[in-house]
Amino acid sequence: MAKELLSVQPYKGTRDFYPEDMDLRNWFFGVIKDTLRKFNYREYDGPTLESYDLYAAKSGEEIVNEQTYHFQDNGGRMLAVRPEMTPTVARMVAAKLGSLNMPLRWFSIPNLYRYEKPQRGRLREHWQVNVDMFGSDSIETDFELLLVASSLLKAFNADETMYCIKINNRRFYNDLFEQYMGFDKEKSRKVSKAIDKKGKMSQEAFCEYLAEIGLNGEEIEKLNSFFEKSFEEMMELCPESKGTIELKSLFKLIEEAGMSNICEFDFSIIRGFDYYTGTVFEVYDKDINNNRAMFGGGRYDNLINLFVDKANVSGIGFGFGDVTLENFLVSHNLVPELKSGMPKVLVTRFPEVPYIEYLKIAELLRQNGIAATVYTDEKKLSKQMKYAADEKYDFAIILGGDELAAGTVVVKDLSKGENETVSREDLVNKIKI
Amino acid sequence: MAKELLSVQPYKGTRDFYPEDMDLRNWFFGVIKDTLRKFNYREYDGPTLESYDLYAAKSGEEIVNEQTYHFQDNGGRMLAVRPEMTPTVARMVAAKLGSLNMPLRWFSIPNLYRYEKPQRGRLREHWQVNVDMFGSDSIETDFELLLVASSLLKAFNADETMYCIKINNRRFYNDLFEQYMGFDKEKSRKVSKAIDKKGKMSQEAFCEYLAEIGLNGEEIEKLNSFFEKSFEEMMELCPESKGTIELKSLFKLIEEAGMSNICEFDFSIIRGFDYYTGTVFEVYDKDINNNRAMFGGGRYDNLINLFVDKANVSGIGFGFGDVTLENFLVSHNLVPELKSGMPKVLVTRFPEVPYIEYLKIAELLRQNGIAATVYTDEKKLSKQMKYAADEKYDFAIILGGDELAAGTVVVKDLSKGENETVSREDLVNKIKI
Repeated sequence: MAKELLSVQPYKGTRDFYPEDMDLRNWFFGVIKDTLRKFNYREYDGPTLESYDLYAAKSGEEIVNEQTYHFQDNGGRMLAVRPEMTPTVARMVAAKLGSLNMPLRWFSIPNLYRYEKPQRGRLREHWQVNVDMFGSDSIETDFELLLVASSLLKAFNADETMYCIKINNRRFYNDLFEQYMGFDKEKSRKVSKAIDKKGKMSQEAFCEYLAEIGLNGEEIEKLNSFFEKSFEEMMELCPESKGTIELKSLFKLIEEAGMSNICEFDFSIIRGFDYYTGTVFEVYDKDINNNRAMFGGGRYDNLINLFVDKANVSGIGFGFGDVTLENFLVSHNLVPELKSGMPKVLVTRFPEVPYIEYLKIAELLRQNGIAATVYTDEKKLSKQMKYAADEKYDFAIILGGDELAAGTVVVKDLSKGENETVSREDLVNKIKI
Repeated sequence: MAKELLSVQPYKGTRDFYPEDMDLRNWFFGVIKDTLRKFNYREYDGPTLESYDLYAAKSGEEIVNEQTYHFQDNGGRMLAVRPEMTPTVARMVAAKLGSLNMPLRWFSIPNLYRYEKPQRGRLREHWQVNVDMFGSDSIETDFELLLVASSLLKAFNADETMYCIKINNRRFYNDLFEQYMGFDKEKSRKVSKAIDKKGKMSQEAFCEYLAEIGLNGEEIEKLNSFFEKSFEEMMELCPESKGTIELKSLFKLIEEAGMSNICEFDFSIIRGFDYYTGTVFEVYDKDINNNRAMFGGGRYDNLINLFVDKANVSGIGFGFGDVTLENFLVSHNLVPELKSGMPKVLVTRFPEVPYIEYLKIAELLRQNGIAATVYTDEKKLSKQMKYAADEKYDFAIILGGDELAAGTVVVKDLSKGENETVSREDLVNKIKI
């Protein structure tokens, strides 16, 4: 009977993390966690499955309708496999509003799912670092998030030639559209969607698109001129806007902190989600082969109100994906050779020595902070040694009948290829050095 | 207009991990990872969504049909939200059979989903530590898994009065059913399912159930006698069985290693999954209020064959859930007070001092391995101090106009309630001590 074999491939757009892949992931999540903890951000997590309503209420439409995996459970509840973390964190903050000390500094590294065509840097499952502050709407808070974003990249030894932060403000451009351009809310919304897609189309296509959504020639010309103007010129267009005041204060802090060389105003930074209300920003890789947004974020002041009426707890945060970060680190040659903190030892075995003797040696080593394994099969010593070398063990221990009688073991240093006979008492020190 | 508010509750049977919960989870996953790395087990991970076929092929029927969340993607693929990790790891091993050095020692801590009625210790989403070895079928390997399971509990300072490992062997009981009892394969299967459920029913109900699946009075009496017999008496019933030989070798190793006081033969240990082929075991909490299986595992020698014809790579592994472990640790009072490794500092602020001065202090502290945050809002010092105390900061830094002129700062030790004025140069040393 021919047997139908199962596929060994993971589901399209998802990844298997073999130990080498996992070492890399653990290393870079470790660097991120250490850095965020130095800023007193605390880790949280939420469920992978959430009520579908959570996303329908607040995200941009595209995400919910086309890209979110969703299904009904047997009890008739519509569930989503989380496509982003912000709704979850907003829900969690809302649930404990009375007992949380504001401001909150929180982070999480969830895996997220989106149903989309897999391509470079875009997978169906990826891990996303989410960094958020709740309960403070000062401009110093907006600045802190930029500083944290920059500090994360610096923690990987990225320097300022490798990345830049592009900043805009949703209050500013809403006021610019409504007060200066005279658009109504609906037209403003359509125009901001158009600008969000601008990077992915030609200038000609962009103008055609603007015409399609109802802008006349003069409006299109005016809108295009925004991308040519300096920061100061732009600020002059809408001087009374709260967004203008925020942008000016933010760039003043950026200058004082010596971050002007990595931060720039960019009117094309819009961010897809509808929930942003103030500062929005993206961190760009400056490598010409990978010139794309890595981090994106902004201020969202009304999200908690979806759960608690008139809560008025402001929020600001950013996120970035593991694939994007990995592409950045690899293209800038920032991935070091990864080393485990502990020496790895293989205790080899011979049939004539009681197995318990090997177990004792391994246990002694582990109690002294050394990773130790006893070879479990009865194979020739050469096979056991090959295994130790292939698996990148640092040392192998050899204990035959003679050594057992003499109270010694042979320690083979696999990187140097040297053997040394030591007493059982000296074994730990020999390996620790 | 009355606004419909969203629920703040997570989906039924799932949990939110607030920072305190996450600290606990990170602590106990940290202990587990350290212990497994000392045995040279390496971490891997796989996708949360897998092809539904993966589970249909090998698990017990109950799991797949009733308890697995599954749905179709837009491309018509039937997906499952992973209910267990073993099929994923078998798939991953099968995919790289040619390039992996056997034996493999692997672990993972995935979140798993099962659609079931939430109850104590059983949630719809939980995290499960999975520990597996592939490519070695020696009895020393079976023993290693028992040793690792026991070492994990000892790493949490559990002692041998708190847990025990109950062991059986599927080859042994299959042979016992088929050769000694004369059951056919189908009847054996039904009887093993009955025994698996034995713990949850009265002796009377168990006997009735056995009668229902076709056992006569004599067979029922014989079967019941197995639970009264000693290990040696049981081994005599089927002396030629490979399972008998394995059990005897395993218990010899257990005795030599001094683990007889925590390991016992228990014929009622069956394990629900159909894929087990040899040793099966469960680790039990001995607390009478929580007397249940915490870990379960066993040998599965044919799983890789589902992917690669005649691969014949044996496997053995066990898993345990975070909820079960937490119940164990709490009931035995094994959760210590958790402390962060770094001192936490809040840099307070006054409006008259340039904000950049505070940023500089925080940056200096972070560069010296101290977690530091600048208060971002303009609030009274008393409010800032209350925040530092509520959020369990270790120190607060005060820098007013006078201190700025003098090149000093005031360091407030929040645990002692003491203030000390130090020079900017001495700040780091003051806090590190």
